[in-house]
Amino acid sequence: MDFSYSDRVNGLRKRIADFMEQHVYPNEQLYEEQLNQQESRWSDVPPIMEELKEKAKKEGLWNLFLPESEYGAGLNNQEYAPLCEIMGRSLIGPEVFNCNAPDTGNMEVLERYGTEQQKEQWLKPLLDGKIRSCFSMTEPDVASSDATNIEARIEKDGDEYVINGRKWWSSGAGDPRCKISIVMGKTNPSANRHEQQSMILVPLDTPGVKIERLLPVFGYDHAPHGHAEITFENVRVPSENILLGEGKGFAIAQGRLGPGRIHHCMRLIGAAERALEELCKRVQNRKAFGKPIAGQGVVREWIANSRIEIEQARLLTLKAAYMMDTVGNKAAKAEIAMIKVVAPSMALRVIDRAIQAFGGAGVSNDVTLAAQWANARTLRLADGPDEVHRAQLAKLELRKYEEQLVF
Amino acid sequence: MDFSYSDRVNGLRKRIADFMEQHVYPNEQLYEEQLNQQESRWSDVPPIMEELKEKAKKEGLWNLFLPESEYGAGLNNQEYAPLCEIMGRSLIGPEVFNCNAPDTGNMEVLERYGTEQQKEQWLKPLLDGKIRSCFSMTEPDVASSDATNIEARIEKDGDEYVINGRKWWSSGAGDPRCKISIVMGKTNPSANRHEQQSMILVPLDTPGVKIERLLPVFGYDHAPHGHAEITFENVRVPSENILLGEGKGFAIAQGRLGPGRIHHCMRLIGAAERALEELCKRVQNRKAFGKPIAGQGVVREWIANSRIEIEQARLLTLKAAYMMDTVGNKAAKAEIAMIKVVAPSMALRVIDRAIQAFGGAGVSNDVTLAAQWANARTLRLADGPDEVHRAQLAKLELRKYEEQLVF
Amino acid sequence: MDFSYSDRVNGLRKRIADFMEQHVYPNEQLYEEQLNQQESRWSDVPPIMEELKEKAKKEGLWNLFLPESEYGAGLNNQEYAPLCEIMGRSLIGPEVFNCNAPDTGNMEVLERYGTEQQKEQWLKPLLDGKIRSCFSMTEPDVASSDATNIEARIEKDGDEYVINGRKWWSSGAGDPRCKISIVMGKTNPSANRHEQQSMILVPLDTPGVKIERLLPVFGYDHAPHGHAEITFENVRVPSENILLGEGKGFAIAQGRLGPGRIHHCMRLIGAAERALEELCKRVQNRKAFGKPIAGQGVVREWIANSRIEIEQARLLTLKAAYMMDTVGNKAAKAEIAMIKVVAPSMALRVIDRAIQAFGGAGVSNDVTLAAQWANARTLRLADGPDEVHRAQLAKLELRKYEEQLVF
Amino acid sequence: MDFSYSDRVNGLRKRIADFMEQHVYPNEQLYEEQLNQQESRWSDVPPIMEELKEKAKKEGLWNLFLPESEYGAGLNNQEYAPLCEIMGRSLIGPEVFNCNAPDTGNMEVLERYGTEQQKEQWLKPLLDGKIRSCFSMTEPDVASSDATNIEARIEKDGDEYVINGRKWWSSGAGDPRCKISIVMGKTNPSANRHEQQSMILVPLDTPGVKIERLLPVFGYDHAPHGHAEITFENVRVPSENILLGEGKGFAIAQGRLGPGRIHHCMRLIGAAERALEELCKRVQNRKAFGKPIAGQGVVREWIANSRIEIEQARLLTLKAAYMMDTVGNKAAKAEIAMIKVVAPSMALRVIDRAIQAFGGAGVSNDVTLAAQWANARTLRLADGPDEVHRAQLAKLELRKYEEQLVF
Repeated sequence: MDFSYSDRVNGLRKRIADFMEQHVYPNEQLYEEQLNQQESRWSDVPPIMEELKEKAKKEGLWNLFLPESEYGAGLNNQEYAPLCEIMGRSLIGPEVFNCNAPDTGNMEVLERYGTEQQKEQWLKPLLDGKIRSCFSMTEPDVASSDATNIEARIEKDGDEYVINGRKWWSSGAGDPRCKISIVMGKTNPSANRHEQQSMILVPLDTPGVKIERLLPVFGYDHAPHGHAEITFENVRVPSENILLGEGKGFAIAQGRLGPGRIHHCMRLIGAAERALEELCKRVQNRKAFGKPIAGQGVVREWIANSRIEIEQARLLTLKAAYMMDTVGNKAAKAEIAMIKVVAPSMALRVIDRAIQAFGGAGVSNDVTLAAQWANARTLRLADGPDEVHRAQLAKLELRKYEEQLVF
Repeated sequence: MDFSYSDRVNGLRKRIADFMEQHVYPNEQLYEEQLNQQESRWSDVPPIMEELKEKAKKEGLWNLFLPESEYGAGLNNQEYAPLCEIMGRSLIGPEVFNCNAPDTGNMEVLERYGTEQQKEQWLKPLLDGKIRSCFSMTEPDVASSDATNIEARIEKDGDEYVINGRKWWSSGAGDPRCKISIVMGKTNPSANRHEQQSMILVPLDTPGVKIERLLPVFGYDHAPHGHAEITFENVRVPSENILLGEGKGFAIAQGRLGPGRIHHCMRLIGAAERALEELCKRVQNRKAFGKPIAGQGVVREWIANSRIEIEQARLLTLKAAYMMDTVGNKAAKAEIAMIKVVAPSMALRVIDRAIQAFGGAGVSNDVTLAAQWANARTLRLADGPDEVHRAQLAKLELRKYEEQLVF
Repeated sequence: MDFSYSDRVNGLRKRIADFMEQHVYPNEQLYEEQLNQQESRWSDVPPIMEELKEKAKKEGLWNLFLPESEYGAGLNNQEYAPLCEIMGRSLIGPEVFNCNAPDTGNMEVLERYGTEQQKEQWLKPLLDGKIRSCFSMTEPDVASSDATNIEARIEKDGDEYVINGRKWWSSGAGDPRCKISIVMGKTNPSANRHEQQSMILVPLDTPGVKIERLLPVFGYDHAPHGHAEITFENVRVPSENILLGEGKGFAIAQGRLGPGRIHHCMRLIGAAERALEELCKRVQNRKAFGKPIAGQGVVREWIANSRIEIEQARLLTLKAAYMMDTVGNKAAKAEIAMIKVVAPSMALRVIDRAIQAFGGAGVSNDVTLAAQWANARTLRLADGPDEVHRAQLAKLELRKYEEQLVF
Repeated sequence: MDFSYSDRVNGLRKRIADFMEQHVYPNEQLYEEQLNQQESRWSDVPPIMEELKEKAKKEGLWNLFLPESEYGAGLNNQEYAPLCEIMGRSLIGPEVFNCNAPDTGNMEVLERYGTEQQKEQWLKPLLDGKIRSCFSMTEPDVASSDATNIEARIEKDGDEYVINGRKWWSSGAGDPRCKISIVMGKTNPSANRHEQQSMILVPLDTPGVKIERLLPVFGYDHAPHGHAEITFENVRVPSENILLGEGKGFAIAQGRLGPGRIHHCMRLIGAAERALEELCKRVQNRKAFGKPIAGQGVVREWIANSRIEIEQARLLTLKAAYMMDTVGNKAAKAEIAMIKVVAPSMALRVIDRAIQAFGGAGVSNDVTLAAQWANARTLRLADGPDEVHRAQLAKLELRKYEEQLVF
């Protein structure tokens, strides 16, 4: 048992933290300003983002997420986790290092299951940060917490597949650079429950693909990426666009979501750490009733509880990463479910305390707290709501004693 | 002891509920659309609002909030509370009935402390719904939880007062109809702690008044009303614009905030009721894993706890109103502090559960849950953060036993 | 709407509070000492109890609980509730006024459903405080949260009923004065689900009745009353001992539990009030790090939250009582379920904070906090666990929208 | 980073778990019965305990707790922690392996700071399990959360020290085998705040030592060990009984409490694990409303949350142990404070859920849940109340940003 990071990881942590300090935090406001100065918030990506990406790429802080792949940096989940945490301290951080959702998940899918041609066409420009991608699984008309509910159809017609359906929360699809979607739908509704679904690559400029609208999160539009509602109406793609084969959609989703979830959790831990730091600084620099707010017992309790909750969430997330690396994503499913429940709620609590300490500034955009809170709130829903993960955990726990059932 | 509403109140409840059902809920979306179709979201008030106001005025559902005044509807706080609750079910509801913050608080101040001329000039058009007003107390540079921190200056200079300072969260000041602000500042910094402050009427078109920016709340701009940061630079107003007299600012603030707080709490109870209603309908009409979500025990626990929490918050708020009516705002200060702590947190929990039940729709604007949540969140800060009210409550509680102190 | 107590109620509140102050609190320790000085803690009732009962009876503070009956004091539930609260401040309080569970519930059953002879034989001495009674419903072998699970049998055999079964948590059965049990069991296992059960009067000295053991509650034996596990083996009683008739057990239980639950809740509110009072006094008289603990912000938050939670629980309980009085126990079932969930958990939180403030003294018996906590904990289970009441509440809430069901 | 236990630790875990399964759990009831059959619950130690100790000693499962000492088993804190966890699953477990509080802490003090003679006289028989010891620090008259409050006096008089004072919560002093106390008191009240206190060895048979009474915890007497209130009246011991020297009391206390706290936390994790296991088995074997309780969503949420909370608490505790082993107790003070706050509250929640699932059995002594709960509750107070540890954590956290203070 060893709770320390390796020297390599510590080196990268320091470099990323320095990069954030020097280049990312000071440009958060500028990013927003450039966005507002454009023709529309959706028309372009703020130039500062491409500048920052160039810088990060030059420093070798790029594509750190891909484990077990020639395309990645040779870091396993446990090594990547503490880096991902630091990137998550800023909402614009992950993209700077080409480590943002949903592109990381999509790149992992392409790396694992893509053909050489698909890699050439889509993975390479994604790894280069030249294009962006989205993932179209969730549907507005059914409870997506149960993946078998999905109703979109992917039907074979000669050399092509024809796609029909309505998806939403296809995050990133508003981005002018977004070129490709991984779409999930049913190829065979009469197959076994977990073999009805397939995943297929659909270029966004294919006829019949229509971005109906971009959904806000609380009042945030999350431009330029956005969260799209997309209709697919008789969309035709070549049959080789299918990933891994018909009926493999559910299996790919399971594989895709494991690392995706752990990345989200690590980013949330970073967001919580930054909120706690901001809270501490704020209360030391603000007076009420003649004394710094930092002297108030209730505020100190917030600080102590935040520190405790962050530490616990981080350790559990690191352990989940360790399990993924040593026994595999499937055997680590309990740990992955646990952190998916723990991290968003923890971050929401910590950030909320910081908001309270900041008063009016906290709910506005003068600090990034409210935006981080809104982002964290979506993660109690995205990739499975808390309730589904808890149900899964209970099932695993009860199974240990099932042979002893009397009934 | 009698927990039933009077016949008159029940009659009004029915009429307002019907009005909401027929006219307000069906136009929430239209209000937003009209706002987006304007030149800018700040340039005009959506026409539907003025139509709805006309309707409400014609039906006599207008200015129901003013107790003990010829201008009001003759309802005391306890009678108004359940009506205010129903209006609060929609974010655009209170304005329809001319019962929205901060105008109600400002009207009450003018009614209580205004001169005849001030009433003629400002109260009448406010009661008519022709103009809007704002309240400029909070400042960005100091912790406003401690009102004595306020630094804006109001200095006598001959027949005029000269106002200098920076305020923010002057809600409503973005509204093109907003004509007047009640500004709080120090007239006499060397007076007793609670007699340094005064309130003064400042027309927004006075030279030196500048709206610097409009603050968002969790990404929402709350157009067309907005929350303004305003600078006052050598702003000169006639000396008769002072309210009640120099040094009375703190006293007016205390008087103003009592009813204001209770109105906010009742609206939050309405918001929570609507969220619970929407949650219940949603889970009965949505399936996961082959069954309506309504069948899940965890969801049922949300429903039960929500019902319990709403009932308790409503009873406490009604009791606070009853105390205000029978023993006065000052003697009711413990009850007012309690509901100010209880209602926002209760509403946040109930709405959050509904968001969770709605999934992605819950965090978007397809339902009003996320917007209601953001609004409720500000009320853990506005009119005093929870922590200040709790501190006040503890002081009152401990005082009961103080004579027994050993030290 | 009127939140004030009547003059009569206020008069009784004052008299009971004075009685508690003068006679009950100062004798709590003596009660325990007398119990320990006896041959065994089960052999006798401490003499001080009978002295206190005489005093209370003489002052007319006796049998205040029975609404709508010539035997009671003419108080309805809403009037009795605030009195019951004061009695509940001491664990020995209710018995002093002959208002303790389970005797009050049993007396109410006898008053409502007993024959003249049963009243003469059992109700009168109970009202006189000469004998005690127990209620034998819960069984160790089945989940009693579902009353239809009950397995004890009550079988007709000529002029007699023969009772067989095992019951536990028959509270009060350890008391040497306990003479009679109301036993619930199945007379007709093939009848409709809610008509299988009956209640029957079983004198404890009937052959075949055996008290197997007395169950502790968190280490407390609750002597001399105790909580008994009782076996009934071919116990024969005359057929006229049946209450109301065969198959009426479930209906009587429902009727019995309404007032019983509200009494428990009021007592818990009293217990919480006393805990808060003790907490406040303690922290004002105890120093750490050079200052009274009362100055610590965290402690003040405990106090504020306790005050808020108590007020809300009391109002809800009073409203439930008001509903019972005005629309009947059945129509008040939602309110009764709500308080049954709210009051025990509220009391547990408030008392727990007081324990924390008292340190080591809090978990010992130097103050009554730990004993009150243990008692309150049983009430999250007794008369239906929280989960059953929440499920009931959710059902009632969802029913409001059922006609709108799509499925 | 490595989250796996070493082979040696896994071997010991298996052996201790097997021992618990075969010898400890099956004898918990017998232990209690033997205690009740004795002349008094305080007169003797149940014979089964000495039998189990013999067995454990024979199997080499003995004194596993002492790190860095020839007397121990050569296990560091991190290696001992998972073993301590398993022992803590039973309240009689730790003593069986001679790893129970407060003896472990006292043995560690003697090992670190004792003279050869003191080791011969007291440490050896303690290591042999022949005698027991107690620790007399807490006082009834002052808030012991602040150690400088301690008022007992230890005064030099020639070759002797004279001790006067009143202590309570001297756990273990009721045990007939208890021979020695480590007493903390002031030798020099005018020294620096942290150098006023000393620790001294006081044989319990010294004239002037009087056990006034044994304090219950909730209703448990914790016989035969008990928690004593002890008066020291002109108690004279040789001056060489002082530990480490005058003024070193505070320093020894700090050193003693680190490992003591981590042991308590690990035991609590074991207690929580057992409670969760019992909960799972119970709900699978109990039906309500026609289905096993295990099928209820609310129960499943309890299970999931319990698993999550246990995992997080364990990881944090193991990390604290790792820090103690690698950077020392002092540098690990934040982690030690964190687990001292986390573990008791976690255990209380998990056990409380199990109690709720067990219904009436849960609050009785038919299962060990209620007793474990009461024990865990004391640990939110013992060795410093939660509030003191949180205050310490906040101080450490704020210190990181102190240089940036504006004031």
